[in-house]
Amino acid sequence: MEKLQPLYEGKAKKLFASENPKQLILEYKDSLTAFNAQKKSSEEGKGTLNNLISAYLFERLSSTGIKTHYIKVLDNKRQLVKKTRIIPLEVVLRNMTAGSLCKRLGVPENMKLDPALVELYLKDDSLGDPIVTEDQAVSFGWATRDEIEEMKSTTRKVNDVLQGVFTSRNILLVDFKLEFGRTDDGDLVVADEISPDTCRFRDASSGDSLDKDRFRKDMGNVIEGYGEIWRRLSGEEKES
Amino acid sequence: MEKLQPLYEGKAKKLFASENPKQLILEYKDSLTAFNAQKKSSEEGKGTLNNLISAYLFERLSSTGIKTHYIKVLDNKRQLVKKTRIIPLEVVLRNMTAGSLCKRLGVPENMKLDPALVELYLKDDSLGDPIVTEDQAVSFGWATRDEIEEMKSTTRKVNDVLQGVFTSRNILLVDFKLEFGRTDDGDLVVADEISPDTCRFRDASSGDSLDKDRFRKDMGNVIEGYGEIWRRLSGEEKES
Repeated sequence: MEKLQPLYEGKAKKLFASENPKQLILEYKDSLTAFNAQKKSSEEGKGTLNNLISAYLFERLSSTGIKTHYIKVLDNKRQLVKKTRIIPLEVVLRNMTAGSLCKRLGVPENMKLDPALVELYLKDDSLGDPIVTEDQAVSFGWATRDEIEEMKSTTRKVNDVLQGVFTSRNILLVDFKLEFGRTDDGDLVVADEISPDTCRFRDASSGDSLDKDRFRKDMGNVIEGYGEIWRRLSGEEKES
Repeated sequence: MEKLQPLYEGKAKKLFASENPKQLILEYKDSLTAFNAQKKSSEEGKGTLNNLISAYLFERLSSTGIKTHYIKVLDNKRQLVKKTRIIPLEVVLRNMTAGSLCKRLGVPENMKLDPALVELYLKDDSLGDPIVTEDQAVSFGWATRDEIEEMKSTTRKVNDVLQGVFTSRNILLVDFKLEFGRTDDGDLVVADEISPDTCRFRDASSGDSLDKDRFRKDMGNVIEGYGEIWRRLSGEEKES
């Protein structure tokens, strides 16, 4: 079988062309990176878990009327998605304080944020994905005012849906990052992935991290955390 | 004469009590600092120039109905101001891109910003005065939504007044920083100083910096730049 060249290879995923010019194949990698790729590793099975978790969550969004790039799972590591032009902003929603925010602003960890805080970060690895204000994003042409309003309100809706999914699985959704893209048909859709690489999840009883923080903080059992998220979402019994 | 102890000493100014408990004495120092005080120096006469320039500009603001902490000049280095509780946010207005903004966001220098860009920074030297969004400022209690709206709209008015003052002196106002305080009477007023330490000024013909950038960038003739601003504001003839 001919080995295809990816159109694009990122830190955690590759993008390939498909037979349909409006659709792409998204392949999830096992590699793990943190702190703007200063810390790197790989965990066998991570790509599969993120593929399945992300697909499951995108299906939940679609079924509540939120537009996404997701079409269907192809196999353990790959899914079919709509081709989009990615808006160069990451939208972060925080239900609680954690991570870089606390270091940068000197605020305590685990402070409940109500209403949830929505922030924009410029997608630029060479600059370390700096936080930007809405006015800066508009002034420098990264998005229009209308696009930002739509991304923010969609992100709050996504939070509502994800909270519904996760509270029923005894999982706390601390924060998450979304990316948005514009399809050829002009729709602004949720793109990229929603997985333990892009969300902070904690067991609601113990407070244990079940996400990339296990890797960032050298807590061990990284893949077990991802697996636990998938187990609770899919309703599979834990292997004894 | 008894030497008074300052109530507070900052990088460029000292604050002393006055006979009136609602009023303080602000003394301008000759010291210069940049990059969060990693670079330090002193220029004889700088304190006097900033005292006179800031007083002159605060008088222009007052005469257009903008509330400030300024009362009157006491002598070359000191002015009388209203006592305020300082809001822990710096409000920066940019008419053009320059400085840290360009490095942090990878945008070109000297790009005209229309409308002017208004940004908030947390006043915290130990954190390096990080930029904050309005939502963050509200969530973490640094200011209320109403205070932020009032500070932003006042800052835009201040820009209009300063543009009027400086364009008539052939000076380009690139950007400036304001601080705000709440008086005992409950008024939100422009506080701190407005000087070549807190503004970027350029000669409108040559483009030469006439502000602290001369110090930041080791351009020499720092005090001459400050002196040139005062000469053009006061209408004094240049000494030959």
